[in-house]
Amino acid sequence: MPSFTNCRTFSIEWGYCDPAGLVSSRRYFEFFDESSWLLFEAALGVNPHDLGERYGILGIPLVDVKASFRKPIRFGDEVEIVSHVSEFRRSSFAVKHAILVGGEPAAEGAETRVWAALDQVTQKIISVPIPLDVMSRFD
Amino acid sequence: MPSFTNCRTFSIEWGYCDPAGLVSSRRYFEFFDESSWLLFEAALGVNPHDLGERYGILGIPLVDVKASFRKPIRFGDEVEIVSHVSEFRRSSFAVKHAILVGGEPAAEGAETRVWAALDQVTQKIISVPIPLDVMSRFD
Amino acid sequence: MPSFTNCRTFSIEWGYCDPAGLVSSRRYFEFFDESSWLLFEAALGVNPHDLGERYGILGIPLVDVKASFRKPIRFGDEVEIVSHVSEFRRSSFAVKHAILVGGEPAAEGAETRVWAALDQVTQKIISVPIPLDVMSRFD
Amino acid sequence: MPSFTNCRTFSIEWGYCDPAGLVSSRRYFEFFDESSWLLFEAALGVNPHDLGERYGILGIPLVDVKASFRKPIRFGDEVEIVSHVSEFRRSSFAVKHAILVGGEPAAEGAETRVWAALDQVTQKIISVPIPLDVMSRFD
Repeated sequence: MPSFTNCRTFSIEWGYCDPAGLVSSRRYFEFFDESSWLLFEAALGVNPHDLGERYGILGIPLVDVKASFRKPIRFGDEVEIVSHVSEFRRSSFAVKHAILVGGEPAAEGAETRVWAALDQVTQKIISVPIPLDVMSRFD
Repeated sequence: MPSFTNCRTFSIEWGYCDPAGLVSSRRYFEFFDESSWLLFEAALGVNPHDLGERYGILGIPLVDVKASFRKPIRFGDEVEIVSHVSEFRRSSFAVKHAILVGGEPAAEGAETRVWAALDQVTQKIISVPIPLDVMSRFD
Repeated sequence: MPSFTNCRTFSIEWGYCDPAGLVSSRRYFEFFDESSWLLFEAALGVNPHDLGERYGILGIPLVDVKASFRKPIRFGDEVEIVSHVSEFRRSSFAVKHAILVGGEPAAEGAETRVWAALDQVTQKIISVPIPLDVMSRFD
Repeated sequence: MPSFTNCRTFSIEWGYCDPAGLVSSRRYFEFFDESSWLLFEAALGVNPHDLGERYGILGIPLVDVKASFRKPIRFGDEVEIVSHVSEFRRSSFAVKHAILVGGEPAAEGAETRVWAALDQVTQKIISVPIPLDVMSRFD
């Protein structure tokens, strides 16, 4: 199993919160999305913007995602997000994110993403095999 | 099983889409969230803003959510979202959302929400039993 | 002065509001942006998605925007947005938006946008003259 | 004139950009909003979350804002935002933000905010005088 892990910490802004003072559910998915890009940047040493060109892909689009919210996260909370690839398959992979507040689990996310390219013939987005040297950077 | 269903249709705006021209993943969760509120408004005949006061609750916060993205949704697409409560439990319930483009399934969402009130003693958010007459409106 | 006006009404959703229960400032700019697209759709009879192809442009990007917030807008409020092009210049135009709650002015917005194309030589975004028949549709 | 200045730098994420690959206009207002909070945190040494309680106010809501977009900002760009209070009035103040990319001005923002409290009698949001010791921290 890939063991490479990336962490980041930040404060919850006023604008992230809803009228109950809690982080809006959709913000979690923005947190997860950003964390996945940063995880790849940290593992591959490639700026997110250059990922496509470097590997000849369109990107790493989500095919499914889920989240569990265990404890409310509020304006001013300092959060830590710990992210890792939990599994590489042939042309897709799974990313897990744990959000901690004060060291306690507050939310979890799990994404499935594909290594996606544009089919030159059909002009459709297709999944393509993940290079072995990409996978090995996550060991 | 509750059979009440709510549908809504709308067009995908420029601002909903990412640099690949596809709806951003977090927008789907905004769509689901809005659709759940509208489903309750349609079933109960209560404006979302009045839901809390009418039933003495704080709201219907999400505890978990998942989504699957089957087909890309693009700027200009006309989408239909069909939503229903798939299960009522004592103090929580499940909502399912199907997003269709041109009548074809493009994405699916499943939310678990709780019927939540503020515990007057501890000032914590707690789940409370869903009134039977609320449930019966979804039959 | 162009006299064509477009109106739309909608309810303020939970997810549009901040911890004070008021519409987040950035949401206003989303409202303005959507209203400008809808104004053009109403005047030209062209779906926003087809605007670029129909007129050989890249779009109508913002160059500057301002907003004044007169009265708080809250979750559950029914808002009306009235939009019109206040001036056409050679390759840019100004759009004004008034947001009303209960018929009373609650906020105002003013955008300057350009009629933009991609310069085939430099690959830069440039402004190009607005066709007269576009302008005339706003009379 | 207050001379205290706060800077922050960050990278433009995929999710900040629209189908043209440019930062969505509404994101600029999120950048400005966050920068204003951070400016106050830096000047006053008070966490945004504690600002209200510390000074007996509700917050620093926007009353008007404007932005000019000079150069497109794209996915992957490293941006610097330089913010300062350009003027204190009795119960309101102006904040200016300059966004630089590669040291070149790319956008500018100007906000007017009020020092706001809740009137205990009317329960309306009112502006109140800004304490002198708050102003002096920006010199």
